[in-house]
Amino acid sequence: MEKKTLKIGLFGLGTVGSGIVELLMKKGKRIGDNRFVLRKIVENDLSRKKGASISWKLVRSDPDWILNDPEIDTVIEVIGGIHPAQEIIMQSLKMGKNVVTANKALLARAGSEIFQKSVENGCYLGIRASHIASYRLIDSLVSSPSQISTLQGVLNGTCNYLLTEMERKEEFFSVILKRAQAIGYAESDPSDDIDGYDTAHKLIVLLGLVSGTFLPLKSLYVEGIRRITLQDVKFARELGYRIKHLAIARMAGRVVEARVHPVLLPQGRGLARLEGVENGVELRDEMGLDISMQAPGAGKYPAATAILEDLICIAEDRKLLFLSEKEPLTLKKMEDIETKYYLRLNAFDQAGVLSKISGILGSHNISIQAVLQKGERKEGGYVPIILLTHKAREGNVQVALSEIGMLSAVQESPLLIRVEKETF
Amino acid sequence: MEKKTLKIGLFGLGTVGSGIVELLMKKGKRIGDNRFVLRKIVENDLSRKKGASISWKLVRSDPDWILNDPEIDTVIEVIGGIHPAQEIIMQSLKMGKNVVTANKALLARAGSEIFQKSVENGCYLGIRASHIASYRLIDSLVSSPSQISTLQGVLNGTCNYLLTEMERKEEFFSVILKRAQAIGYAESDPSDDIDGYDTAHKLIVLLGLVSGTFLPLKSLYVEGIRRITLQDVKFARELGYRIKHLAIARMAGRVVEARVHPVLLPQGRGLARLEGVENGVELRDEMGLDISMQAPGAGKYPAATAILEDLICIAEDRKLLFLSEKEPLTLKKMEDIETKYYLRLNAFDQAGVLSKISGILGSHNISIQAVLQKGERKEGGYVPIILLTHKAREGNVQVALSEIGMLSAVQESPLLIRVEKETF
Repeated sequence: MEKKTLKIGLFGLGTVGSGIVELLMKKGKRIGDNRFVLRKIVENDLSRKKGASISWKLVRSDPDWILNDPEIDTVIEVIGGIHPAQEIIMQSLKMGKNVVTANKALLARAGSEIFQKSVENGCYLGIRASHIASYRLIDSLVSSPSQISTLQGVLNGTCNYLLTEMERKEEFFSVILKRAQAIGYAESDPSDDIDGYDTAHKLIVLLGLVSGTFLPLKSLYVEGIRRITLQDVKFARELGYRIKHLAIARMAGRVVEARVHPVLLPQGRGLARLEGVENGVELRDEMGLDISMQAPGAGKYPAATAILEDLICIAEDRKLLFLSEKEPLTLKKMEDIETKYYLRLNAFDQAGVLSKISGILGSHNISIQAVLQKGERKEGGYVPIILLTHKAREGNVQVALSEIGMLSAVQESPLLIRVEKETF
Repeated sequence: MEKKTLKIGLFGLGTVGSGIVELLMKKGKRIGDNRFVLRKIVENDLSRKKGASISWKLVRSDPDWILNDPEIDTVIEVIGGIHPAQEIIMQSLKMGKNVVTANKALLARAGSEIFQKSVENGCYLGIRASHIASYRLIDSLVSSPSQISTLQGVLNGTCNYLLTEMERKEEFFSVILKRAQAIGYAESDPSDDIDGYDTAHKLIVLLGLVSGTFLPLKSLYVEGIRRITLQDVKFARELGYRIKHLAIARMAGRVVEARVHPVLLPQGRGLARLEGVENGVELRDEMGLDISMQAPGAGKYPAATAILEDLICIAEDRKLLFLSEKEPLTLKKMEDIETKYYLRLNAFDQAGVLSKISGILGSHNISIQAVLQKGERKEGGYVPIILLTHKAREGNVQVALSEIGMLSAVQESPLLIRVEKETF
């Protein structure tokens, strides 16, 4: 294996960027037979370079300073956001530079063009840092001749932290969220995480790698965790489940079911076991091979280390990713999926309410597996009723729920959480 | 990605070889943009080609027919055994041909030279077919800059089948073994599998990939499953465990603990869940990333498919494996490992025996966690006694066992099974 020297240009000197500088300064310069030389840094906010102990001469604000430097063969993009990250990456690839990025929002949006450009120009595209949970699986996912049939993942540490802390501390969502923000496990504007978009971005990229098709974000069913209450967490536990926020994809031929939402998972196994900010993913392929991966999540496994692994791959000349041209995916309609359901509704505690509800469900081919009615009467005589259904069609369930919501004895619209199984 | 045509020479027309012929004839010729052309087959036993529906002109018995053909760029070796497989592989690499092999016994024995030769000559070395259980992990294992700290695997389908069938059918080892031989889950001479050598070969290769050092087989502690009785399987279950045959490696710096033997694993999780001929492996790296993989084992995931995946990697120019030069591994002595123990002994049912035994254990710093004494008195007044110890040093346990074995009230030498935890 010949020795190689990578000459690196870094875009962005935020948290991840500073981490990379540190790694490359400290232990990165030489790894194995290869050398990694950080030549230039571009950062708009020049106040940031104060934090990092680097020479002033290394930092400027003009992207062309890196892009037009023929000496630089590898670009790391950690500025985030769509613009100008997209232009920087496309231009870098056009100039024949390898690109390493942690930008999942951009990859989800423009993955097709970015991957195609990298292949056209024979450049390496490193995306490990955008997929901590599936980090070590990406290579084999892409190279596999056998198709992935199921993919399930807890891909967002913030969501998992909030859900497991609610369970552990028995505190309300809003209380836990505030604490998570205070200790850095949630952003001050947490919507990207807790409304499911971060998870959706990751799912789109994973599916893109596997299938060659990057689904548009708006085509996916995406639901966050804001409606999950402490009550649901407790009921779920009582019923032998844990609430997790999941990315789910199931493929049969070129038809795919892809969705992001909270689910009930059976306690004690696989993804249900993940605690705090841990991430995990489970896969099954059509040959019956099961594979799972768990990552500690935020903090312990910094994106900078994942980026370093990409740099090593470049030096070792492992062309990581190319998307094979396949027939485009067809997305299954959400109303056509079939699963079990957990339904929580507040109903006026009177005779006959439950029979009305089960009547409506029955008329839509939804049969009930279990009912949990807790005595704790709330103001106005309403009590929470939990229903677990057998497998039913989502479309039917939605219609039934709107009918149930219109019953005078039922307060507000019922909450629905889908019940899923472990992958294996 | 440019289109490529691989010109393939196949050594061996046994079960796997015929499977490859079929795959390449049926769907293999063109996969994606690449073509796979089977040019020549070398097989000593010319009667074998009758089974495969291939042209007579494709098959000869002289290895040089392939080795000296400059047109052939890729060699598949599925003849097995050490000689002449080793010479064929080394010569192929020397001639600049890529090599794909399923030969774990050879890789365990001569892995260093074979990998080195492949790197020297810039040839791809495909070994997926030798590692069904860790199939999708191999790339990332080798490319990872962070060290594996723990590796545990059920790597032999025959052993797992025998152990789970004993449990399921409550039949004796010998009965199950005979049936396994009849249905092809065990060889007519099963020693390679049930004495642990197949598992040991796989462990040596996995460790070799991860560490760059191929440990000699004789340096490893290797124990098979012949001494496990139906009684042990039942006792284990009663205590909340399942008996599995495991490959275990733990690394701290360049010191490694590597061993192959039956273990008790807590029921219901991870590797303990594997049924029948299923294989599985669990890994943890020093960054805290956990990864696991399960494969259906014999039959359903034929080696031929794994070989096809290697061929695709060659066509896509993914240089898979190269071993980095690292300091050699130091193997921890077996007597220095520490774990918990399950001890089964037949003792004469008389007052004071148990206190003698626990006295001996105590004198060697071994404390008892649980005792299980079953009433079922055997001929001669002997009853089985099961002891679970707390963590103890292997060396101490071995000395204590030999002392216990010399007690007049104890029949034959006690059976020891180590008790391990899940990796994560």
